[in-house]
Amino acid sequence: MKRSIVEIQQAIRFNLFHMLQAAARAEDTGVPAKGLTGQAYEGHYFWDTEIYLLPFLIYTSPRIARNLLAFRYKMLPQARARAKELGHRGAMFPWRTINGEEASAYYAAGTAQYHINADIMYALRKYVQATGDEAFLRDFGAEMLVETARLWVDLGFYSAAKGGKFCINGVTGPNEYNAVVNNNAYTNLMARENLHYATEVVESLQALEPDAYNALVRKTAIEPSEAKAWIRAAESMYVPYDEKLKIVPEDDNFLDKEPWDFRNTPADHYPLLLFYHPLNIYRKQVIKQADVVLAMFLLGDVFSPEVKKRNFDFYDPLTTGDSSLSSCVEAIIAAQIGDIDKAIRYGMAALLMDLADVGGNVKDGCHIASMGGTWMMLTYGFGGMRDDDGTLSFWPRRPPEENAVLRFPVTYRGQLLEVEIGLEKVEYTLREGERLVIRHETEEVELTRENPVAVRTVSRG
Amino acid sequence: MKRSIVEIQQAIRFNLFHMLQAAARAEDTGVPAKGLTGQAYEGHYFWDTEIYLLPFLIYTSPRIARNLLAFRYKMLPQARARAKELGHRGAMFPWRTINGEEASAYYAAGTAQYHINADIMYALRKYVQATGDEAFLRDFGAEMLVETARLWVDLGFYSAAKGGKFCINGVTGPNEYNAVVNNNAYTNLMARENLHYATEVVESLQALEPDAYNALVRKTAIEPSEAKAWIRAAESMYVPYDEKLKIVPEDDNFLDKEPWDFRNTPADHYPLLLFYHPLNIYRKQVIKQADVVLAMFLLGDVFSPEVKKRNFDFYDPLTTGDSSLSSCVEAIIAAQIGDIDKAIRYGMAALLMDLADVGGNVKDGCHIASMGGTWMMLTYGFGGMRDDDGTLSFWPRRPPEENAVLRFPVTYRGQLLEVEIGLEKVEYTLREGERLVIRHETEEVELTRENPVAVRTVSRG
Repeated sequence: MKRSIVEIQQAIRFNLFHMLQAAARAEDTGVPAKGLTGQAYEGHYFWDTEIYLLPFLIYTSPRIARNLLAFRYKMLPQARARAKELGHRGAMFPWRTINGEEASAYYAAGTAQYHINADIMYALRKYVQATGDEAFLRDFGAEMLVETARLWVDLGFYSAAKGGKFCINGVTGPNEYNAVVNNNAYTNLMARENLHYATEVVESLQALEPDAYNALVRKTAIEPSEAKAWIRAAESMYVPYDEKLKIVPEDDNFLDKEPWDFRNTPADHYPLLLFYHPLNIYRKQVIKQADVVLAMFLLGDVFSPEVKKRNFDFYDPLTTGDSSLSSCVEAIIAAQIGDIDKAIRYGMAALLMDLADVGGNVKDGCHIASMGGTWMMLTYGFGGMRDDDGTLSFWPRRPPEENAVLRFPVTYRGQLLEVEIGLEKVEYTLREGERLVIRHETEEVELTRENPVAVRTVSRG
Repeated sequence: MKRSIVEIQQAIRFNLFHMLQAAARAEDTGVPAKGLTGQAYEGHYFWDTEIYLLPFLIYTSPRIARNLLAFRYKMLPQARARAKELGHRGAMFPWRTINGEEASAYYAAGTAQYHINADIMYALRKYVQATGDEAFLRDFGAEMLVETARLWVDLGFYSAAKGGKFCINGVTGPNEYNAVVNNNAYTNLMARENLHYATEVVESLQALEPDAYNALVRKTAIEPSEAKAWIRAAESMYVPYDEKLKIVPEDDNFLDKEPWDFRNTPADHYPLLLFYHPLNIYRKQVIKQADVVLAMFLLGDVFSPEVKKRNFDFYDPLTTGDSSLSSCVEAIIAAQIGDIDKAIRYGMAALLMDLADVGGNVKDGCHIASMGGTWMMLTYGFGGMRDDDGTLSFWPRRPPEENAVLRFPVTYRGQLLEVEIGLEKVEYTLREGERLVIRHETEEVELTRENPVAVRTVSRG
């Protein structure tokens, strides 16, 4: 159904409101999967916070973003205990929790999601990069980085069968329809990021802030050899690649699986997990939610545009979107590869997840992750925002609706940028701050207090 | 500790007694894992019955063996319902049960053991072959064969990634330290056997016993095309083989796993499952109980002596024997490949499992499977008994104890054979019956009422 601009605007505000309501007083608590709107998931917190909600908060309410990361930090003792319980070194953050302890009773789609560790460290890096809050990194982040990096080197191993590469077996990626697999691409890529960041931060503290480094040694008993082991694992990290299809397989065995019989799956048998035994789902080639596609969004620099398109074209038809964490990410990558029709379709599904009850379960509460994803779909997706390399950049690819304007604020290192994307022009305005260098498409743009506005043409195609 | 012949004889009788006590009145019931000796496993029945206990009963008390197979047949309605519940055609016998319904709450090491179906059909074939009870096969066995064969063709698929071979993904083999894997060699080989036998029996009924075939059609609605699909799957069955190590890998990924750190595993941390999280166990190269090695015993004809030895040498050091189903099978294969020292060591562990409390849990009851395995270790192992091709054969490889004799009776198609294996001679005596042709090593031996005794020299080396 075609929605009017007014309806869309209203839906966006509805999403923003619920995120803010759920997060505004998150002081020493996390944001539950349903925010303040329902009791599903018993008020538990998931990685939804770090990957789906935090970007919005980091770029609009960094104080709250910090609260949520501090909340994770407070759970570090339980994460350390959980790692020990599982026989690992380091710390292992839970898949679902309310007090820091793992509250999942089903390890295959819960605890086995080791990627949670890397997701939290990914959000930490984004937060530090966008806010410049080096104090938080030094006082809390570094300790989490040490313990998560320790877990990765303990978990993986150098596999002779894979040419000596560092492999991570027996984990579950974001796609919960494919449990306990070897070398989940998402996990390996995010773990590599985690290891690189941990090394970088620890080495920087050691070189430049001896007091902070000594404090870190007291807190973690870190030894100089450890960072070397991290960087070695990161540099040897195995990332699956299929030479024939020229795509990144979800894991070592994903391409060997029997295709799911979508044709004979009744429309009322979704989400599949409510109608089929997990054994039946896990052995088939079927995806609950973006997995490799999520990696392509989070680690945009790792994938060439050609691989992005091939991966998306391969995974999109296999993706049920049975999780509300999927549509928004699919929309972003669709926009990036220039498939605006699909980006709009998935984007509308994310936007209207709760208002139009797309998932059929809004009675249990709103989908905070999808709400955060909606903001990401608009900014990262149609706005083409990127922050991978420390410079904020934009490459808009918005829907061709003549009478609509996409306007959003972005807080970056204490300055306030407003982006307004019209049909053919985009206007960047520095509302607060002295000087901000951003990138429009491939061009550097300098905004200053004296010259706060820059207007650029949006390229097409 | 060195045991005297008297102690060994006593232990053997202790084992035989408990099996007979547990099974003698098995009329409309199964034999619980602990027999009548304890409450562990809540009185539930497992595939232990068919693979570990039934051979003893088939060859010594065929009436009871028939009762136990009839008991399985009575569970067919529940097995059909369970298959449907899992989304499969055919029937799916439970991993653990007391009333025919799956009573396992942990699918990864329970329900995922699809091989149970094939194990029961394997025992059926052994029973029919050893007793000639074609009536049981016709009236009950055929129906189970149809439904189990249906399950296999529904479960597997022709995999493009494996050159069009028939693959079975997402199952757990006998080794419960390696759950939900692809192409478990044991499962694929046993399923192939199941499919071949089902085809053979159905085609034979169709050709020779039209009334019985029509009855089967009424009971199963079998269509003529089905047997063709079974034989095609059987003939295309994928069996993993590693060209480099020249062994049969346990499954598609077993050789990619990180080795278990046996050196740093404290002796009091066995069985591993009580001390390590399943995720940690499953991702490592470690074996609870004979898996490929069990297949080598059950399907002796499939493996060349060289492959048997290479497989055993590869798997033996990785096998914890944390299950009481392991030692007896290891002993048999060790004896077959001529490693008599190891055969004795494993054989003694099986023999004394309960009397010497090898597993440390005899307070919970005796290990009926290991008791059956003890009988198999003596007959199939040291006696070198084989029945794969329909002729009973013997190739003794007994321990070199001068003052011991290994003597056992074997009931075969209503006749009674006694085998007495001395240090250098073996004596075969037909105690009851008209004529029995057996094989000693490679030589055919005919025993008749007139000439009931044959003495042969045991070859060495």
